[in-house]
Amino acid sequence: MTEPILFYFDFSSPYGFFASRDIDALAKRHGRIVTWKPILLGAVFKHTGIKPLTTIPLKADYTQRDLAREARRLDVDFRLPQAFPFASIAAARAFYWLWDQDPEKAKSLAQALFEHAFIAGQDISKPHAVLEVGRTLGLATSDLEVALSDPAVKDRLRQEVEAAIAAGVFGSPFVLVDGEPFWGYDRFPRIQAWLETGGW
Amino acid sequence: MTEPILFYFDFSSPYGFFASRDIDALAKRHGRIVTWKPILLGAVFKHTGIKPLTTIPLKADYTQRDLAREARRLDVDFRLPQAFPFASIAAARAFYWLWDQDPEKAKSLAQALFEHAFIAGQDISKPHAVLEVGRTLGLATSDLEVALSDPAVKDRLRQEVEAAIAAGVFGSPFVLVDGEPFWGYDRFPRIQAWLETGGW
Repeated sequence: MTEPILFYFDFSSPYGFFASRDIDALAKRHGRIVTWKPILLGAVFKHTGIKPLTTIPLKADYTQRDLAREARRLDVDFRLPQAFPFASIAAARAFYWLWDQDPEKAKSLAQALFEHAFIAGQDISKPHAVLEVGRTLGLATSDLEVALSDPAVKDRLRQEVEAAIAAGVFGSPFVLVDGEPFWGYDRFPRIQAWLETGGW
Repeated sequence: MTEPILFYFDFSSPYGFFASRDIDALAKRHGRIVTWKPILLGAVFKHTGIKPLTTIPLKADYTQRDLAREARRLDVDFRLPQAFPFASIAAARAFYWLWDQDPEKAKSLAQALFEHAFIAGQDISKPHAVLEVGRTLGLATSDLEVALSDPAVKDRLRQEVEAAIAAGVFGSPFVLVDGEPFWGYDRFPRIQAWLETGGW
């Protein structure tokens, strides 16, 4: 049981953001590490026919309310960016490029991107915004800029999204613990119980 | 804060079944009572465009697995009826007819119907199945049979479903606590926290 826990998320997913704040600590309490895997829900939704939460009558209003309520509970100064949902392809490419060099730094970048979107409420959909967030972490802007349009990086992300769909991932956050799937931030208590008990 | 808690569910919803086992005890611990309100997800989904869980690629497989996992956790001898999802209109009509005479008995009928579907794995979509379950509870079969095709009972259910949609209900289970909405069985810990704290 030494395989990393797999944490799938989309940078445009607010529940993914909430989950990103907890997942490493949760795993660490049980001696586990976490591999972060940004995906593109747009590609996943094409496969499943699911629509973004905010486009569904009634569910959209509920989701806004639930997000605000969860944020108050978590004491997070949360806001939705004006443009939402937004494209997360640049953020995801930046992440994988950095992950292959330094996973811990890639997690820091992911958290900074999430906070830029869901605490500062800023647009992170454009490459220049991702570069700017990278710069605040001391990343070489020119290297990152090249990476964002590098065919190898684009392929890497495409393959990750395809592999995620093949693994059954259909939403964000989505966690695999030794092959056991957990969808949604509201399943996090179950992940904890699963890690504590070894499953049931 | 003496208004009843409103518990919306569809008789064809397995998570609604899990919720039905907990909701009254949860409310009672906080001195509250619960009004049960069966709805028809088919009508709600027409309004929202949401599709049944079991028809969505990837999500369908996950849901089957999650239901089995939740059932093991709850120690419920759960099974999905062969025909699933199924029509729940007869069950819902029977419920409202009985509720207007004896709410406690209506809850007993609801639980018996849920168990017939999700523990015995039987079809409860047909009126004769609902009559049979009613008979085991000592209900007068002929009265119930008349009720199931009584225009007033049909109207009652139709109005309840419309009122639920107007109140923002888009899934099952769905709970309103003094106007605060909670969707999904996985939000039940939040309902408990909300009742404990008075909200946040």
